[in-house]
Amino acid sequence: MKRSQILIKTQKEIPADADSINASLLTRGGFIQKEMAGVYALLPLGLRVYRKIENIIREEMNTIGGQELLMNVLQPKVLWEESGRWGKVADVMYRVGTDVGLAPTHEEQITDIVRRRISSYKDLPAAYYQIQVKFRNEPRAKSGLLRGREFLMKDMYSFHENEDDFKAYYDKVAETYKKIFSRIGLETKYVKASGGMFGDTSNEFQVICPTGEDVILICEKCDFAENTEISKLKSGDKCPKCGSSIKSEKAIEIGNIFPLGDKYSKSMNAKILDADGKEVAMIMGCYGIGLTRVMAAVVEVSHDNNGIVWPESVAPFKVNLISLNKNSEADKVYEELIRRNIEVLYDDRDEITAGEKFADADLIGCPIRIIISEKSLASGGAEISKRGSQDSEIIRISKLINKLAN
Amino acid sequence: MKRSQILIKTQKEIPADADSINASLLTRGGFIQKEMAGVYALLPLGLRVYRKIENIIREEMNTIGGQELLMNVLQPKVLWEESGRWGKVADVMYRVGTDVGLAPTHEEQITDIVRRRISSYKDLPAAYYQIQVKFRNEPRAKSGLLRGREFLMKDMYSFHENEDDFKAYYDKVAETYKKIFSRIGLETKYVKASGGMFGDTSNEFQVICPTGEDVILICEKCDFAENTEISKLKSGDKCPKCGSSIKSEKAIEIGNIFPLGDKYSKSMNAKILDADGKEVAMIMGCYGIGLTRVMAAVVEVSHDNNGIVWPESVAPFKVNLISLNKNSEADKVYEELIRRNIEVLYDDRDEITAGEKFADADLIGCPIRIIISEKSLASGGAEISKRGSQDSEIIRISKLINKLAN
Repeated sequence: MKRSQILIKTQKEIPADADSINASLLTRGGFIQKEMAGVYALLPLGLRVYRKIENIIREEMNTIGGQELLMNVLQPKVLWEESGRWGKVADVMYRVGTDVGLAPTHEEQITDIVRRRISSYKDLPAAYYQIQVKFRNEPRAKSGLLRGREFLMKDMYSFHENEDDFKAYYDKVAETYKKIFSRIGLETKYVKASGGMFGDTSNEFQVICPTGEDVILICEKCDFAENTEISKLKSGDKCPKCGSSIKSEKAIEIGNIFPLGDKYSKSMNAKILDADGKEVAMIMGCYGIGLTRVMAAVVEVSHDNNGIVWPESVAPFKVNLISLNKNSEADKVYEELIRRNIEVLYDDRDEITAGEKFADADLIGCPIRIIISEKSLASGGAEISKRGSQDSEIIRISKLINKLAN
Repeated sequence: MKRSQILIKTQKEIPADADSINASLLTRGGFIQKEMAGVYALLPLGLRVYRKIENIIREEMNTIGGQELLMNVLQPKVLWEESGRWGKVADVMYRVGTDVGLAPTHEEQITDIVRRRISSYKDLPAAYYQIQVKFRNEPRAKSGLLRGREFLMKDMYSFHENEDDFKAYYDKVAETYKKIFSRIGLETKYVKASGGMFGDTSNEFQVICPTGEDVILICEKCDFAENTEISKLKSGDKCPKCGSSIKSEKAIEIGNIFPLGDKYSKSMNAKILDADGKEVAMIMGCYGIGLTRVMAAVVEVSHDNNGIVWPESVAPFKVNLISLNKNSEADKVYEELIRRNIEVLYDDRDEITAGEKFADADLIGCPIRIIISEKSLASGGAEISKRGSQDSEIIRISKLINKLAN
């Protein structure tokens, strides 16, 4: 895509109202626009990144049998009174009038959908997910896309005939989450945590990061990890699992999974007949990933002083092609990359200096930068470098195309 | 996909709270669940149809240079005060507290995004669209998905340096809309109408249908068409364009496009320098399609007494494969259809009667029904029929696969 075909206006200055690294760099790179505290629009460049995250998540959810659906945002009071949460979520749930709220989560509605359709253990296990805008009246909306009042989320809900079946699926989802985050370029810790508004306990996926709002305790050797909000340990203690030393780290929570037991199925009468013909409440789990939060977390852990360094799997484009002194060779390379379905952003602007083009490329953060100029051509081809690295090399153009195609 | 892999529970009875043909048939077929008046969840089957409509629209918007983005739902009062609409839209805009509303449309925000980034005629024309949930406080939410309080919509906004350029793009969008609806299987009339909350005039895309809420006047011969809300003509009058007779028809509006002039760009100071270096307000247009409304319109015009008759382009599956008396031949056909990427819903349920399977297939409405039974195999293969037709034929299984693959 040529720069002229996509709305990108980068900015050198740190925005005055940026409350975090992610808000600052995403704004400066032309990915988002802040509309109010905790509320952002995804501009065309930001939507490209978002879609890649979305597609990875959707693919993996489908792989573990998740069925996609799309529930409504407007929630009737009467439904939330069944579970007894209408009053309890008053702090986080935006209200529209007195009897309707904006969904911060969908346990009640999915339970309602399932209880009307499933009545036998034969139809279980089943898992339903959606990728959708959510709303939470967040007093501390001060971390960019990490803590939004309006945000995009994948939430999945699973239903089981008993605890054993639930536990097996819960572990499968946990593994799948690890895979999702790894595909997005994020290394995560699987952390025991409190259940918040959902129950007694949960497990979180945390990315270690100095700007994180959570503090977790992790073992230096094994995979033991607990959120300080529930842990009885402190930094320096011995790991209860392997005896090594525990240390504390700041981290960003990017996913969480909750055993719900029969909390909703019991209060909302979502029962099935089990194999013995006995009526039992279904056992449920819920599984969340904040997509816009994931985007922000990538930025928090993967940037330098000049801008974002996107992992290739979620980069807006794989290649940023820069033409200097308007040359036809760059046009040809662009056409060839397009022909080969290699995602490329082509900066062919005339009136812009080389320095400005390089600064833009850094802010936008595509993994590979290619410069084609009179100088590079005189040296034998194109100059190629990786975002975040100082090294570059000159490469013959025919070789370049094949290199990128692989 | 096997029936056991997707949540479908059809119902024979007309739901007590169904307010329209579309709500009734979509509910009975297992596509939607009503949560409150004008608010519906898309179940897995409904989401499949929705995605097909979405993909057709996205493809065509991209073809005419639309750039996709995703704006926020929560709208600050201060932005809408700039255009002077905060008070005017009070009837339709849900409010969250006193200073925030839920977006029923996005002229203000897109104008804000563009004015911060575009300052020269060289960057125009430009068009931005999103596909997103919208909210309107609709007093008459009584037509199923035709008139929702919460609904899914594609809205595009275009920006131009002058009226001529705008007009050319407006006509191009109109042509593209015709193509979109035709791909979805809907024949539309291009109708002159009032501007509603957007301006003086607009053009609507109307589908003639006895259950429509609009009344339009159309020429029996030429393409003249006006909404009665603005027309000075009546049924029986002569067509002002060709002299033939005018008749009146009930119709469903499924798309509308509006010239916005400089209404928003002027009040919100979205100006550019034109080719002469003069500062001028941009000329804008906006272009909407209600996706859930389109889904409902398809049902209103394409059904019979037994259920929905989906056009192939938006059908949840192309083929509904029914196995009777559990036979391995049907399993083989299913595997082969999957292998060839032919979308198939496979009813291999054991405990269900043939009559129930046929009734289900009618309610779900896939274009092609294939029955494989001892009887059909004895007669030489599979029984194939088109949804909505009484005719069926027996076809050899090898021939069947090739027929469907084309």
